[in-house]
Amino acid sequence: MTFSQFRPLDEKILIEYIKSTPALSDKIGNKFDDLKIKEVGDGNLNFVYIVVGSTGSFVVKQALPYVRLIGESWPMSKERAYFESLTLKKHGKLCPEHVPEVYHFDRTMSLTGMRYLEPPHIILRKGLVAGIEYPMLAEHISNYMARTLFHTSLIYRTTTEHKRDVAEYCANVELCRLTEQVVFSDPYRVSQHNRWTSPYLDRDAEAIREDNTLKLEAAELKSMFCERAQALIHGDLHTSSIMVTQDSTQVLDSEFAFVGPMGYDTGAFVGNLILAFYAQDGHANQENDRKKYKEWILKTIEETWVLFYKKFTALWDEHKNGHGEAYLPEIYNNPELQLLVQKKFMTDLLHDTLGFGAAKMIRRIVGVAHVEDFESIADAAKRAKCERQALEMAKLLVKERRKFQSISEVVTAIRQSQ
Amino acid sequence: MTFSQFRPLDEKILIEYIKSTPALSDKIGNKFDDLKIKEVGDGNLNFVYIVVGSTGSFVVKQALPYVRLIGESWPMSKERAYFESLTLKKHGKLCPEHVPEVYHFDRTMSLTGMRYLEPPHIILRKGLVAGIEYPMLAEHISNYMARTLFHTSLIYRTTTEHKRDVAEYCANVELCRLTEQVVFSDPYRVSQHNRWTSPYLDRDAEAIREDNTLKLEAAELKSMFCERAQALIHGDLHTSSIMVTQDSTQVLDSEFAFVGPMGYDTGAFVGNLILAFYAQDGHANQENDRKKYKEWILKTIEETWVLFYKKFTALWDEHKNGHGEAYLPEIYNNPELQLLVQKKFMTDLLHDTLGFGAAKMIRRIVGVAHVEDFESIADAAKRAKCERQALEMAKLLVKERRKFQSISEVVTAIRQSQ
Ligand SMILES: Nc1ncnc2c1ncn2[C@@H]1O[C@H](COP(=O)(O)OP(=O)(O)O)[C@@H](O)[C@H]1O
Ligand SMILES: Nc1ncnc2c1ncn2[C@@H]1O[C@H](COP(=O)(O)OP(=O)(O)O)[C@@H](O)[C@H]1O
Ligand SMILES: [Mg+2]
Ligand SMILES: [Mg+2]
Ligand SMILES: [Mg+2]
Ligand SMILES: [Mg+2]
Ligand SMILES: [Mg+2]
Repeated sequence: MTFSQFRPLDEKILIEYIKSTPALSDKIGNKFDDLKIKEVGDGNLNFVYIVVGSTGSFVVKQALPYVRLIGESWPMSKERAYFESLTLKKHGKLCPEHVPEVYHFDRTMSLTGMRYLEPPHIILRKGLVAGIEYPMLAEHISNYMARTLFHTSLIYRTTTEHKRDVAEYCANVELCRLTEQVVFSDPYRVSQHNRWTSPYLDRDAEAIREDNTLKLEAAELKSMFCERAQALIHGDLHTSSIMVTQDSTQVLDSEFAFVGPMGYDTGAFVGNLILAFYAQDGHANQENDRKKYKEWILKTIEETWVLFYKKFTALWDEHKNGHGEAYLPEIYNNPELQLLVQKKFMTDLLHDTLGFGAAKMIRRIVGVAHVEDFESIADAAKRAKCERQALEMAKLLVKERRKFQSISEVVTAIRQSQ
Repeated sequence: MTFSQFRPLDEKILIEYIKSTPALSDKIGNKFDDLKIKEVGDGNLNFVYIVVGSTGSFVVKQALPYVRLIGESWPMSKERAYFESLTLKKHGKLCPEHVPEVYHFDRTMSLTGMRYLEPPHIILRKGLVAGIEYPMLAEHISNYMARTLFHTSLIYRTTTEHKRDVAEYCANVELCRLTEQVVFSDPYRVSQHNRWTSPYLDRDAEAIREDNTLKLEAAELKSMFCERAQALIHGDLHTSSIMVTQDSTQVLDSEFAFVGPMGYDTGAFVGNLILAFYAQDGHANQENDRKKYKEWILKTIEETWVLFYKKFTALWDEHKNGHGEAYLPEIYNNPELQLLVQKKFMTDLLHDTLGFGAAKMIRRIVGVAHVEDFESIADAAKRAKCERQALEMAKLLVKERRKFQSISEVVTAIRQSQ
């Protein structure tokens, strides 16, 4: 069997594929007798196989030329697998602690072989639903965000390097268009894909479609998403793209990557933590009122930003005499100005973070793809109540984001909203 | 003689080239006896030959792999000729009245054959120095800017079309980097290329290098220039890239084109008109105090923006149900919101225009490349006085641009500065 043409995997084909691929078969010591294969893809787009042998393991992810959640009626370039593996490698080089190693990539087959994030790794969102604290999360994710975003921006690199990435990732246009549609457009219009907790939120969904101020801001955020080539971003950094244990944090699923606004990544993470916060009341019960856990989430939001700020500006200081072309040393290397420049940059980025994060909150409540944080609240009335609170906060954040000067003000606003 | 390899032209080679190129030789009826050839390139970068026969004419422009003004010590990709001809064609399709027709392009030779803009066409800057009014200028240039910028933005086109241009023009990186350096960096640091009217402006040049607020804004503008893929811009739209008669306005020299911020084009034009305004006192004499002419320049600035605003938003209205992906009709097609969205867009664009325009004024006074408007003022003290006024206004515009709500406020500020 050869694989010179694209073929969707099944278990039998996958075994043949592994046999003909040393980069993978070596990982399991070329032993196939006791191989366990399991398709576990629970994402919206792709197929994921866990392959475990007696001496090793890996994961194989394959993109089919359509959206898994919808089916063949929603075609989607399988080239997204190329951009995912390319980004895993680029971000992995910048932050190996928090990105699974890529063992193999096959562009024809849209197939990536990568490290299996073995148990007890679970999807962060599931941990947040279960009420589990992750003491290293803020430290780790701020590390990942600071290092990937800083090093792929013009603060660190030359225009020549930068434009090379910009050009290459332009070909990942279908994934960008998907985001444009489901995040920045569908929630603000009647769309067959939209859904919400009905009838409770019928009026809330309608109100969003009628809110001119909100739609004005949505247009600005969409334009920034489409136009601003600031850094090589992950593009889908919500809490289901992150796997965690108590001492490990791993970022996967970077198929939406392109050179876009940094705030879209930082916002995805922060926005999804805020969603998790508002979902907690729906998970509270007599054993656990989740009050303490909610405080942990707020603390994690605050720490993530504070640490990100620290690490990003520390990288900036460290490389201020480097080859980055945005802020040339002869112009900006005086302590007072350097501080001024960084403060302005980080305040602008906080505002982008809040805007994008809140836009992503809105789309998870009234758009096509919802989140387990709310979906797992069985009682619809209770779920709707949580969702409405989140929606109100998201609208406020989109509209008033420029008034927040620090993350602690944001956290205070969230705390006081309840 | 074949031209399968790059060769710098001279008159003899050019004649051979024309003979072997029907697209050019046809233009002169294949008659070579009475051919007149003249190299007229007065720009900073390239060589321009005017070819006139008894039955027709054309211009041949060739890019050499270095900057003409400096020589071989400043290498510069000759691929810029490709991007120039590509842009002349794209913009020419959108606005044929104001872009010379391209007859022929040869990528190997970096050679463009195009319409000869015959006399009385002169470079607009020369007309401004001579004190000549151009009654159609605002009408024409606003037409050119509105049509080229609107149709190459996401208001008009799809993300897929847009990213194709973004990717292709990333390869014009050397020209972008040249702008980054000479417009956004060199004026704010000590650079061997910088010069100014010394000793008069020594202290002024130093003050710019020490002005933290100004440098903060310069960084923001530079980042926008590098990151924001808003429309296919000309990239060098100053008054020497425009040839005029009383009833014709032609935009040439688009070798700096890329998908960048619209305000960089509108700003280039407006900023260079403001330079022309402040130069007038240096050209005044007993016959002509230039007072009336100065008012004509201010009126042209105001009319250009007002007409641009009208035409750009009219195109927007006309195409609001089209395939453009920034503002989808189901979301934005209600008259009140449409007005709100356009007002916000145009106000932001005015601020970008002032920022970029003023940055380009500054660089023409203390940077490497100066303008004839000032250079032709023989008396250095008088010249310095004009330049200082322009510099002060430019600094104010960069720093306070967000306070201006309309172009008439800008014109008033300029008028009152004297
Ligand atoms: N490297 C891995 N190790 C362990 N589990 C993984 C790995 N990659 C993916 N998974 C599992 O597969 C699921 C879907 O993977 P993901 O990359 O998010 O696919 P999709 O692009 O379809 O969203 C994840 O939620 C996770 O449970
Ligand atoms: N199509 C044309 N018709 C007439 N003159 C032209 C034409 N193109 C260029 N020129 C003349 O050549 C000069 C330099 O051309 P330009 O395209 O600006 O070159 P550069 O890129 O070197 O600045 C112009 O200022 C103008 O005088
Ligand atoms: Mg996923
Ligand atoms: Mg995915
Ligand atoms: Mg020129
Ligand atoms: Mg600068
Ligand atoms: Mg030129």
